[in-house]
Amino acid sequence: MVLQHMFGSADSLITIDLDAITANWRYMDSLSAASTLTASVVKADAYGLGADVIAPRLAAEGCQLFFVMSLDEGIRLRHSLHLAGFDGLPIFCLSGCHAGQEKEYLANGLSPVINDLNQIARLGILAKRHDLAIPAALHVDTGMTRLGLSPDETDWLVAHIQDGADALEGIELIYLMSHMSSAEVESAPSNGQQLDAFKALRPFFAKARASLANSGGVLLGKRFHFDMTRPGVALYGAHPAGVSAASEKAELLHPVVKWDARILQLRHACSGEAVGYGGTHILRRDSLIATVGVGYGDGYPRCLGGIAVAQIKGHPAPIIGRISMDSMALDVTDMPETAIRSATTARLLGSHYDISMMAKDAGTISYEILTSLGQRPARHYLGNSCGSTIDCL
Amino acid sequence: MVLQHMFGSADSLITIDLDAITANWRYMDSLSAASTLTASVVKADAYGLGADVIAPRLAAEGCQLFFVMSLDEGIRLRHSLHLAGFDGLPIFCLSGCHAGQEKEYLANGLSPVINDLNQIARLGILAKRHDLAIPAALHVDTGMTRLGLSPDETDWLVAHIQDGADALEGIELIYLMSHMSSAEVESAPSNGQQLDAFKALRPFFAKARASLANSGGVLLGKRFHFDMTRPGVALYGAHPAGVSAASEKAELLHPVVKWDARILQLRHACSGEAVGYGGTHILRRDSLIATVGVGYGDGYPRCLGGIAVAQIKGHPAPIIGRISMDSMALDVTDMPETAIRSATTARLLGSHYDISMMAKDAGTISYEILTSLGQRPARHYLGNSCGSTIDCL
Repeated sequence: MVLQHMFGSADSLITIDLDAITANWRYMDSLSAASTLTASVVKADAYGLGADVIAPRLAAEGCQLFFVMSLDEGIRLRHSLHLAGFDGLPIFCLSGCHAGQEKEYLANGLSPVINDLNQIARLGILAKRHDLAIPAALHVDTGMTRLGLSPDETDWLVAHIQDGADALEGIELIYLMSHMSSAEVESAPSNGQQLDAFKALRPFFAKARASLANSGGVLLGKRFHFDMTRPGVALYGAHPAGVSAASEKAELLHPVVKWDARILQLRHACSGEAVGYGGTHILRRDSLIATVGVGYGDGYPRCLGGIAVAQIKGHPAPIIGRISMDSMALDVTDMPETAIRSATTARLLGSHYDISMMAKDAGTISYEILTSLGQRPARHYLGNSCGSTIDCL
Repeated sequence: MVLQHMFGSADSLITIDLDAITANWRYMDSLSAASTLTASVVKADAYGLGADVIAPRLAAEGCQLFFVMSLDEGIRLRHSLHLAGFDGLPIFCLSGCHAGQEKEYLANGLSPVINDLNQIARLGILAKRHDLAIPAALHVDTGMTRLGLSPDETDWLVAHIQDGADALEGIELIYLMSHMSSAEVESAPSNGQQLDAFKALRPFFAKARASLANSGGVLLGKRFHFDMTRPGVALYGAHPAGVSAASEKAELLHPVVKWDARILQLRHACSGEAVGYGGTHILRRDSLIATVGVGYGDGYPRCLGGIAVAQIKGHPAPIIGRISMDSMALDVTDMPETAIRSATTARLLGSHYDISMMAKDAGTISYEILTSLGQRPARHYLGNSCGSTIDCL
């Protein structure tokens, strides 16, 4: 009943454990040397979980540096941190500073992650005009072929630093960065190759601190940590290699997300009747069905109809038939009558079925499960200033 | 440049054509008799496109009845309609009125779609206590086995109406409804079966108007229309059977959604280099790559890496490698140099690749593509009061 009350007027509730997030940040931080800064990647709205709430909490925990993607996200994060009393913390925008965005970068105290020579030139001109040094990171590509200076561009830049031309004039290069393509695969040859390529470039940017590791990179060990690490998905309780929290290999990452749905209706159906759109599921016995108020319109992957299992009062409740936009049907025939009759909610994500298991079943990665969580479910943050907790199911 | 300006500080822009939505509503309305009311289904935030904007626009077009799922959505819609000056329009919540929600239903003038006998009893007591009649719809299940009175419950109710017990006392039954499981499949035997079952029940609820048809049901013809139709997905430009707008079978539905992404970086890469996470795509030639600012964190399905095709200035630009959370790589090697050098954006969704094509490639349905569109992209509404238009790419 406590839980149902928290749904308010919504049909489901996503519970996000802020204490788990900070514990995960501390764990990632503990893996690197004391001199290595542990940033927090809060792009894509903190992987779908709410940057406005999570970033200030991480700042309170001691995180001194944040990464977002777009200028938009940077502006919003600056505002959230300001409201919480954390002014002046550096925020880096991975997308870079695009033509026309320069003023907003300066006005909001945001730092671009520079991805190409064009941006270097443009920011250099801006710096000259305003007679200032623009704090920035430089992203060099070492094998991801996505963002960052290509090897050709890097060679050009290195040549134009060495010959005294100071191609970086006006830019206060705080970090030299690169990004790993397969850090979550311990045995990937690209890890060592990217590490070597990155190390070879460092001497040319001697004043800049260095950063290479995402969550996977942090777990690879200290060789990959340099001056700053950039964990993202691990903060949100998902192992970068997709290891379930239930596994021995799960590291000391705490699960962060639970998802509970309101039972909208409990009903009998007869053997032979078809369940859901397309009538794809034909009942093989007289059944008791609980229809719950979450569907793919809430971010629950539609492809998990007939595959995933919910949980009601500790009992498994398999999803049957196709998942609808706003609801899904659970087979609760095998549940004890007293348990199902008094149940008001079903757990969709939790220890019985975590983000990693859901990702595996949906043929994707935990990251996409997290960022797909919809806006319709109510959200409750455990460990928030109000100190409220949920003890449910 | 016009388009790029509209991105603001975001890295992509979803353009939603309100005129197309109202044209689609008029088209759906034109298929039924003048005496049949055409409601609008705006649940799941108007299928991900923004109920706050879309519902008032549909009200202005003449739509007199709306459906949402949860009480939460109902409250929000009531507020949006009020702000736009459309007070008093009925809003039905498909989720039903759950224990504890009664006051909010009444306070916000919302009407529940009653799904079980329990709700009938509870609302009856409430009506007695407040000495009023609660306007509601009754959902009878005719073969979907999801929500609505089961055949057993319907039989019980019918018996207790016939014997004079007035099991519906206190409830002003405005609509008798059912929902079709396979209306998008013209040949599905269930269509006729559900129609017959629904017709057989009507005489027992003679004062209530009748409604059976979702978008697919509207397209099935007048036999399915009764007093009110409830189109949803068709309003948003997607054919319920997944027919692409480019097809001859597309009906007269106007496409509603376009999605454009900022080109974050343009770079050369050499034959043999690996692109993206996991290095799954190995370049077979020296290539020009455009990295654009949309990823699965924006709602673009991750599974479309290596499958879907974007468009830049009318030229195809295939996605190569895995899609990242915030970006993806396009192969623009075959584009004319002058075109790609002056391009600032890439189109991800549009006439070259519409919602239906994307859904097919992603192994899902248009509905899930729509509701998955993320919150990070900027949104622009064409045909909004400001009257602005975009002419781009």
